[in-house]
Amino acid sequence: MAQVAIVMGSDSDWPVVEPGLRFLSEFGFDVEVIVASAHRTPDVVRDFTTSAKERGFEVLIAVAGAAAHLPGVVASFTTLPVIGVPVSGSALKGIDALLSIVQMPSGIPVGTMAIDGGKNAALYALSILALKNATLAKRLLDFRKTQAEEVYKKNIALQEKIKTSKPR
Amino acid sequence: MAQVAIVMGSDSDWPVVEPGLRFLSEFGFDVEVIVASAHRTPDVVRDFTTSAKERGFEVLIAVAGAAAHLPGVVASFTTLPVIGVPVSGSALKGIDALLSIVQMPSGIPVGTMAIDGGKNAALYALSILALKNATLAKRLLDFRKTQAEEVYKKNIALQEKIKTSKPR
Amino acid sequence: MAQVAIVMGSDSDWPVVEPGLRFLSEFGFDVEVIVASAHRTPDVVRDFTTSAKERGFEVLIAVAGAAAHLPGVVASFTTLPVIGVPVSGSALKGIDALLSIVQMPSGIPVGTMAIDGGKNAALYALSILALKNATLAKRLLDFRKTQAEEVYKKNIALQEKIKTSKPR
Amino acid sequence: MAQVAIVMGSDSDWPVVEPGLRFLSEFGFDVEVIVASAHRTPDVVRDFTTSAKERGFEVLIAVAGAAAHLPGVVASFTTLPVIGVPVSGSALKGIDALLSIVQMPSGIPVGTMAIDGGKNAALYALSILALKNATLAKRLLDFRKTQAEEVYKKNIALQEKIKTSKPR
Amino acid sequence: MAQVAIVMGSDSDWPVVEPGLRFLSEFGFDVEVIVASAHRTPDVVRDFTTSAKERGFEVLIAVAGAAAHLPGVVASFTTLPVIGVPVSGSALKGIDALLSIVQMPSGIPVGTMAIDGGKNAALYALSILALKNATLAKRLLDFRKTQAEEVYKKNIALQEKIKTSKPR
Amino acid sequence: MAQVAIVMGSDSDWPVVEPGLRFLSEFGFDVEVIVASAHRTPDVVRDFTTSAKERGFEVLIAVAGAAAHLPGVVASFTTLPVIGVPVSGSALKGIDALLSIVQMPSGIPVGTMAIDGGKNAALYALSILALKNATLAKRLLDFRKTQAEEVYKKNIALQEKIKTSKPR
Amino acid sequence: MAQVAIVMGSDSDWPVVEPGLRFLSEFGFDVEVIVASAHRTPDVVRDFTTSAKERGFEVLIAVAGAAAHLPGVVASFTTLPVIGVPVSGSALKGIDALLSIVQMPSGIPVGTMAIDGGKNAALYALSILALKNATLAKRLLDFRKTQAEEVYKKNIALQEKIKTSKPR
Amino acid sequence: MAQVAIVMGSDSDWPVVEPGLRFLSEFGFDVEVIVASAHRTPDVVRDFTTSAKERGFEVLIAVAGAAAHLPGVVASFTTLPVIGVPVSGSALKGIDALLSIVQMPSGIPVGTMAIDGGKNAALYALSILALKNATLAKRLLDFRKTQAEEVYKKNIALQEKIKTSKPR
Repeated sequence: MAQVAIVMGSDSDWPVVEPGLRFLSEFGFDVEVIVASAHRTPDVVRDFTTSAKERGFEVLIAVAGAAAHLPGVVASFTTLPVIGVPVSGSALKGIDALLSIVQMPSGIPVGTMAIDGGKNAALYALSILALKNATLAKRLLDFRKTQAEEVYKKNIALQEKIKTSKPR
Repeated sequence: MAQVAIVMGSDSDWPVVEPGLRFLSEFGFDVEVIVASAHRTPDVVRDFTTSAKERGFEVLIAVAGAAAHLPGVVASFTTLPVIGVPVSGSALKGIDALLSIVQMPSGIPVGTMAIDGGKNAALYALSILALKNATLAKRLLDFRKTQAEEVYKKNIALQEKIKTSKPR
Repeated sequence: MAQVAIVMGSDSDWPVVEPGLRFLSEFGFDVEVIVASAHRTPDVVRDFTTSAKERGFEVLIAVAGAAAHLPGVVASFTTLPVIGVPVSGSALKGIDALLSIVQMPSGIPVGTMAIDGGKNAALYALSILALKNATLAKRLLDFRKTQAEEVYKKNIALQEKIKTSKPR
Repeated sequence: MAQVAIVMGSDSDWPVVEPGLRFLSEFGFDVEVIVASAHRTPDVVRDFTTSAKERGFEVLIAVAGAAAHLPGVVASFTTLPVIGVPVSGSALKGIDALLSIVQMPSGIPVGTMAIDGGKNAALYALSILALKNATLAKRLLDFRKTQAEEVYKKNIALQEKIKTSKPR
Repeated sequence: MAQVAIVMGSDSDWPVVEPGLRFLSEFGFDVEVIVASAHRTPDVVRDFTTSAKERGFEVLIAVAGAAAHLPGVVASFTTLPVIGVPVSGSALKGIDALLSIVQMPSGIPVGTMAIDGGKNAALYALSILALKNATLAKRLLDFRKTQAEEVYKKNIALQEKIKTSKPR
Repeated sequence: MAQVAIVMGSDSDWPVVEPGLRFLSEFGFDVEVIVASAHRTPDVVRDFTTSAKERGFEVLIAVAGAAAHLPGVVASFTTLPVIGVPVSGSALKGIDALLSIVQMPSGIPVGTMAIDGGKNAALYALSILALKNATLAKRLLDFRKTQAEEVYKKNIALQEKIKTSKPR
Repeated sequence: MAQVAIVMGSDSDWPVVEPGLRFLSEFGFDVEVIVASAHRTPDVVRDFTTSAKERGFEVLIAVAGAAAHLPGVVASFTTLPVIGVPVSGSALKGIDALLSIVQMPSGIPVGTMAIDGGKNAALYALSILALKNATLAKRLLDFRKTQAEEVYKKNIALQEKIKTSKPR
Repeated sequence: MAQVAIVMGSDSDWPVVEPGLRFLSEFGFDVEVIVASAHRTPDVVRDFTTSAKERGFEVLIAVAGAAAHLPGVVASFTTLPVIGVPVSGSALKGIDALLSIVQMPSGIPVGTMAIDGGKNAALYALSILALKNATLAKRLLDFRKTQAEEVYKKNIALQEKIKTSKPR
């Protein structure tokens, strides 16, 4: 049974959703992903979100661009933690979506990620789920180490690149 | 029976709503004004809006600040024309509300007014209603003339002020 | 006889105008589209707009980029509802046009759409015209349903895509 | 033992921290609040955060203005969920702090709240903690209802105000 | 006979207009100042501007806030040089007016001043008029010298202030 | 002898300068164009500008991007009217250059054009020069008419395009 | 003999300059402060800066608001390190000054501080001077410690405040 | 032994780092460049920076995009002068990185360069090092002259281009 759902406002948001979905899959999480628009299919959003908790979801990720009301609308129908991801695909490059998602009024928060930050939304969801899943908590620590090691390797590669380019 | 409804996201939006309400009253229109939050009372917004048309409303004005999802959420539940008014009461002085209201996705438009433009929302509503109300159309023309005359008077007052201040 | 006119400030705005025009045509509306510049041909704008009402127009759509004075200038000459569409074709990606169109002073409102929101302008015009056209009102409801169904279909296609990509 | 810690970058952030602290107290949560600067006392931040999990903390709230590196720095030392709150006290009214907090790179997310959104940070922390605390989950639902009722009451008060002001 | 006219979009722009008017008066120039709104009294703007050249005006200054179409509209009716001054009196502190005035399309330029730069508009007008008025050109050079001397004096005053405060 | 000089801060500004230069040439004006940097060759800027008036220049156009101090520095050395053109070639797309050019302090104005508005700078220069050149004034009026006619033609072409595309 | 000079574009910048001056004085540095405008007294700026190195200055701090060309102009006349401080005193709250100071072209850098960051400019100057002054380097380390201790004290005061406020 | 270190937050920042590295190499400086992330490898940043001074480094350059905490974090661990370079590679084109780097709190300054200003960071480092290296100071003066000469040459090339294009 899926613990995480990703609601995307438009199928054009897929390039932002996909890395998050893949990341959650790599951690063995089953994820339900749906396309549902806060404005074009408001009742789908409402029904999906209102029943999310009883269907076993624990964290909801909502991804949207431009006016980007989706994360806030999702949050209005549930007390589960909602993670919002602004998408950059408008003329204003996502600053509209960012402000619309993050500037929620008192009483209905949305935990907002960076513009196009689909992978970080997945990671943030895992950090929440890890609070009651010691194995996951351990895996997140390992992920951090692996991530650090990738930086070390990039640094080693850089040193190599610089050294070999120096003689000239 | 009211043809125009004003939905305000918070009672703190009153200073923006009040001039519009007064303006509509001066034109003899009965207006229903409600406080209803897109996030704190989503079902009120939904119920009010979904039934708005059958209850005789023809134009809906929605006023909100910060994330300001209210106008878009209202628009998602009706095919009546929705007029959105961003409010400046956040740290970002309303640019957040403006972008959130105006950048609606294809398929669900909101006719957006200036930041804090409550009176203009009322006037815009009247311009819509005047399409099937010749008396109102005539009164709008008169309003335009009166409005122009106020500018003329201000100009005359200015000339006077400049003339009397010149000798010194 | 056309009920809707679209005034575009430059023929380079065509990619924004065209979807709106097509949409109105699909609804069977005859539309008059003209190129007229608020600055280069102010008298054309004035003459066209001043006489718009008596020639049977009911809604005017004005499309412009950069300084984008056109919608406001159109609105200054008529009491018909004016819908403004900012175009993104400047170095500032339309934020200049958006502010210029939406921040109209008290007394002369312009219902502003999203940047490049030509189709939504058409839809908003229809929502206004539907107030005295029950058939159109019905068709708008149908459009909403069709639009929702397209989202459902996209969701189904997404589920298919995810399922088929899972094995790997 | 406290499950939530609030780290504030400067004691001048108190007006943003205080409502969140009060809110958590009302829900019976013990909260540890410290002043620690990402730049002036980086080792305090590091030590506090690195040991946060083993000392029983489950959610960390970090509040900061201007460059506002604190939430990101906190997040770099823990896999616990970190909630960031931008503060508006700079010349740029918090847009600097907002971008600095939300635009975190891939791998280290911060769930960002609205500018000055201290209370929502507390509420978001509770929504996370409620995932393994059914009593709290129930209380959050009650809070939502109370919150909605406050909007209903404000609406009733508004109706009263409008009615009594009408005769004149 | 006045060579310079100042058109202000609203009498509330007076605090920006007044320093410019006074400055031109100190240089012995007769100035015509009028209140005329691009949107509320478009025909006044048109008539005033269209006939400006034949009535002897050589430079037109237009002052406006928010949508601030006035300078561009003035420029559309004359080939005289038009100087535009954005006013900061909106929620957006004049960035709306600035973009609206400066981002004029090819073919109709407006020489734009700083936000609230009424005095500089006057000075710029004088720099234009000085091209065919050697006495004025000489006076502008003198003004520059006086202006520089005021900076020197402020510097001397500063040195004094620092010296006397040093003994602490 | 040239009456107009164009100072460009970098040879990369040529695409903005060239249309203005061509426009001035079409009006028969000899123009001196130089590359001179406010920061890399400050003395060239100073010497060129300080002597500009006595060498017969009447209007100076300065074109620059990013920090874009050039127009202001030019203006600091002359009482001739200076026209500033911000260039969009930085990461910030010219908003940096625009603010830097237009926000000049009291006492040293720069008449600022739109971002990349090289042609409008030329036209504005001509509008200034026309004040003492009746032939030029006449030609500017003709240019305005030609410009309007081009819009008419574009409108006719549009009507043709729409008509021929309708049958389908 | 002074090693640090502070050039301020206007005497109104004093509230930003004063904390930096006081800070440098506390470290025993003699500082020369002058009012000199890049635009109103360009030759003073040039003469002061060109000769700065031979008169023994090692770091120059330039403070300015709005167009804020001063730091860049100072940098154009010297190879000494120049520290720029944007001032918030314009309608745009210093974002104009910040962009103008920081976006310097390749070849002439200005080390830019936060808006109104006069004290940090002084501290940065000291960090530069400390490279050849071991005593100063030691004092900077001490300053860091004292600064950290102030944060510790504020934290203790906060704990006290929270504890005493709890019973109620 | 290297006097300058460049810390880059990600190996994708190389196009901004490389010109600075090359520039420093041309001046004969040995530079240590490392990839180290403020968030992914905070301890590497801390260890590298804390020991930087004793290992002989005199100036640290930190390059980062998006949240861009790296320069501030580096500065928190050293009293050496830190030069920050914002990178444009995010959806917001570097305005996020710029604000995050420059808006440092009182007590921990970062000398901030233009967006993508890697070469200027190198040059600024040299201007600092030149304070105790007369040969380098001389070379910087020569560099300024060469740089000016390049502008002269570009001007000559421009004159040639204009002349040859004139006949037509």
